[in-house]
Amino acid sequence: MAVQHVQLVQNILAGNDELALENRRRLDRAGVLAVNVMASPGSGKTSLISRTISALQGQLRVGVVEGDIAGSVDTETVLAAGAAHAVQINTGGSCHLEAGMIHQALDCFDLHDLDLLFVENVGNLVCPTHWSLGEHVRLCLLSTPEGHDKPIKYPMLFAESDVVVVNKIDLLPYVDFDRAAFQDSVRALNPTTPILELSCRSDEGLQAWLDWLRQR
Amino acid sequence: MAVQHVQLVQNILAGNDELALENRRRLDRAGVLAVNVMASPGSGKTSLISRTISALQGQLRVGVVEGDIAGSVDTETVLAAGAAHAVQINTGGSCHLEAGMIHQALDCFDLHDLDLLFVENVGNLVCPTHWSLGEHVRLCLLSTPEGHDKPIKYPMLFAESDVVVVNKIDLLPYVDFDRAAFQDSVRALNPTTPILELSCRSDEGLQAWLDWLRQR
Repeated sequence: MAVQHVQLVQNILAGNDELALENRRRLDRAGVLAVNVMASPGSGKTSLISRTISALQGQLRVGVVEGDIAGSVDTETVLAAGAAHAVQINTGGSCHLEAGMIHQALDCFDLHDLDLLFVENVGNLVCPTHWSLGEHVRLCLLSTPEGHDKPIKYPMLFAESDVVVVNKIDLLPYVDFDRAAFQDSVRALNPTTPILELSCRSDEGLQAWLDWLRQR
Repeated sequence: MAVQHVQLVQNILAGNDELALENRRRLDRAGVLAVNVMASPGSGKTSLISRTISALQGQLRVGVVEGDIAGSVDTETVLAAGAAHAVQINTGGSCHLEAGMIHQALDCFDLHDLDLLFVENVGNLVCPTHWSLGEHVRLCLLSTPEGHDKPIKYPMLFAESDVVVVNKIDLLPYVDFDRAAFQDSVRALNPTTPILELSCRSDEGLQAWLDWLRQR
């Protein structure tokens, strides 16, 4: 039974990777950069995406795929922030997005009308890491109230990220977050990933993030 | 392939439930109350457990099972707080604890020497809800910086909890957390669950939580 399960999981992941590759080709043909945003619930994924969209208004056309177990509040938020188009995926009970879901969502966009596509994954530091979606950038978002020890407890996401963003630095005076310890533990897992600090509330650090994104 | 997968998942969950029942019988025979603490990463699970242990010092003997993908920092923390005994489970890549893991962990305790057992699940608002561990109390912990909209996005955990604890109320002046909206959305999913607000930093609200726990 155990072996059968492992085989099945391998088949499912292999199927996912094939679809992810197809998603990537579609995005590349249309010249769209796709960013997979992964984080805990409540770390500010929607805030980062919304703040980025409004800051890039008139410069880049941004689409968003919102992944949630249920509800569509985030889709309404990013549309209000100025997203060119947004698609809500409700996973039912599933704890992560899969390439097949993105494959269907891409059908809802006119990709040639976009420059940038944010995919907001389900809030979860574990499961989304196993599922490639075809994205160009794997963004790991963490907020300061979550604590600096998260890379030790959830190493995979930090190890495999193309960029680590620390949100809610406006709360640093009120929470226990050791910036040096955080940076050390990220560096131990992923020596080259940029670590950007910002606050979507005060806009501190936002410019450096926008500059990084524009370079990509 | 799809049907085969569903069947397999049902078998695995049925096997889990059998082991959970066995765990429950062992805990009942020893007169130990087990609390399964489920929350996002960084919402303060370890802080709540540690603060409770030190407040109950000399009154109740408390054991802890710590579930993490990797690392053992939390086990060191709860032992320093005065836990009678603590066992670390490292799940490798798994995003939740399962009854079989708890079954093995219980072998490491002298259960007759305990009154209360906290099980700190992996930080995740989705996957742990599917896996019964044999616990008496399913505790859903949320921290105010995560936002009041979490019950809408992660309904299962809130719907199935025996108690909802809101941590980090000392941060209320600095974050967007609408208490009334939160309470309304929890009530819509779970009309009878108590909702307790506290801060493990300022100790505000801690007494009401300890009183609730003692009644159980």
